[in-house]
Amino acid sequence: MSDVNAVKHFLLSLQKDICQQLAAIDGGADFAEDEWQRAEGGGGCSRVLSGGRVFERAGVNFSHVTGKSLPPSASTHRPDLAGRSFQAMGVSLVIHPLSPYIPTSHANVRLFIAEKPGEEPVWWFGGGFDLTPYYGFKEDAVHWHQTAHDLCQPFGDEVYPRYKKWCDDYFFLKHRNEARGIGGLFFDDLNEPDFATSFAFIRAVGNGFLDGYLPIVERRKDLPWGEREREFQLYRRGRYVEFNLIWDRGTLFGLQSGGRTESILMSMPPLARWEYQHQPEPGSPEALLYQDFLPARDWLAESHTHNKEA
Amino acid sequence: MSDVNAVKHFLLSLQKDICQQLAAIDGGADFAEDEWQRAEGGGGCSRVLSGGRVFERAGVNFSHVTGKSLPPSASTHRPDLAGRSFQAMGVSLVIHPLSPYIPTSHANVRLFIAEKPGEEPVWWFGGGFDLTPYYGFKEDAVHWHQTAHDLCQPFGDEVYPRYKKWCDDYFFLKHRNEARGIGGLFFDDLNEPDFATSFAFIRAVGNGFLDGYLPIVERRKDLPWGEREREFQLYRRGRYVEFNLIWDRGTLFGLQSGGRTESILMSMPPLARWEYQHQPEPGSPEALLYQDFLPARDWLAESHTHNKEA
Repeated sequence: MSDVNAVKHFLLSLQKDICQQLAAIDGGADFAEDEWQRAEGGGGCSRVLSGGRVFERAGVNFSHVTGKSLPPSASTHRPDLAGRSFQAMGVSLVIHPLSPYIPTSHANVRLFIAEKPGEEPVWWFGGGFDLTPYYGFKEDAVHWHQTAHDLCQPFGDEVYPRYKKWCDDYFFLKHRNEARGIGGLFFDDLNEPDFATSFAFIRAVGNGFLDGYLPIVERRKDLPWGEREREFQLYRRGRYVEFNLIWDRGTLFGLQSGGRTESILMSMPPLARWEYQHQPEPGSPEALLYQDFLPARDWLAESHTHNKEA
Repeated sequence: MSDVNAVKHFLLSLQKDICQQLAAIDGGADFAEDEWQRAEGGGGCSRVLSGGRVFERAGVNFSHVTGKSLPPSASTHRPDLAGRSFQAMGVSLVIHPLSPYIPTSHANVRLFIAEKPGEEPVWWFGGGFDLTPYYGFKEDAVHWHQTAHDLCQPFGDEVYPRYKKWCDDYFFLKHRNEARGIGGLFFDDLNEPDFATSFAFIRAVGNGFLDGYLPIVERRKDLPWGEREREFQLYRRGRYVEFNLIWDRGTLFGLQSGGRTESILMSMPPLARWEYQHQPEPGSPEALLYQDFLPARDWLAESHTHNKEA
């Protein structure tokens, strides 16, 4: 299947490109590479930057694994495919910046193929990206969502609103009644209208991630910060841990199905803290995160209104 | 049901007693108390000590909640009781010491009662305690398990080995193929031979916890430690987070059924860190934890052999 090779080629070059650009903006540390094999089939390449000037940790993981029996959790809408042999390939990344003024971000693009003798293979793409600020900046949120919107636009007017809402719904901590961040795009089970178009969308998402993220990093990386901001960042990173370990389907699927733990948990923050009954001071920048940034918002509608008013 | 009131009375005095003794040994901070109500019924009292000289955080929680429909996860062996109205009361505690030489510890005693009109109420006790050292000391492990053994002994020879193994099996991180610590006791669905005996066992477990833990705290609290030990402690605390959020049935039951998040997550460490591919130096004290302490062992059999040899 030459299509599959094309996707693999894209994913590997996406991983390389993202790592190069992140290392360039960091300027202090580079990625270490770690190739690994999986007993059941396939393997991957984990690339991790630690202790950088800008990034406390950035992990960019490529994997291409094969298995004899697809777990039900691998597809949202097609549990009927469970039990088929499968292959899955993707790039997944989580970036934990050092500065509390730079948001944590996550991106993922993946292709699943479920096979059964005598039947056509069933394939679907999934992925997206989302942003988790500690201190909110409206212009960053608008830029992030504008980038997401613009890359979706060639694929139809309904794509951005649909995947934006899916992202808001997915990255939500039910036990806190609180969003993980300001969202972005999330989609799964994408196999329409055809492979070529779906693959083109995946490329747009993968390539669009840095268009959304790097300008925010550039804008915020030299802002001075101190112990107060660091403490709040570490506290909020605890929420990131909670989401990933309690609610994230991808993480749980990986850990409970014998995936490579060290690669899956590259998403964990380098340092996180918990505090009983933490309450930000009313009106503080920390309180504004909860009040103005975490509740789901249509950032672009507000931005357009604002532009018209101006 | 006067039995229930007796249990409640015991649990409240256990909470008070444990907090007093922990505050006394800490000498630097005291417990703050936080009473709360639960919308569906019942409530509790959370007591938290933070930033002490000995304990970085200690949380001792009492709760007595009622509900209209028992979730299946509440009982290991009696899923048939799901859907009954219920009440649950218990004391649950997690202690995160500041010194990496003092183990983290956890204890819990609880009573469930499932009710259905026209039928006898079904009751059962559960609980136990377990120890999570960062640096292993054989004499501490033997003392901990000897205490567990001795409090079980009046209830039958088979009690300690059975609940010790249950504890080893339960506090296990499957995704790491690694125990959370050196274990202790764990049991659930205890309703034999009768209420009075089961309640007596619960009292023995609750009261025995400090007999096991305090001598270890006393022995280790003045050992000097530095950045190396602190870093390893924070790294290992990451495992504690992983267990509690991924595998702990009690935590997940609480969070997914609308329990009080701040009380449930009092078990989280004040600070934890993650590192990609952390490997302790062979032969180091950190490596010995993995090699000699985390794999399940019969601490008392070895201790008795040792005594005979001596």
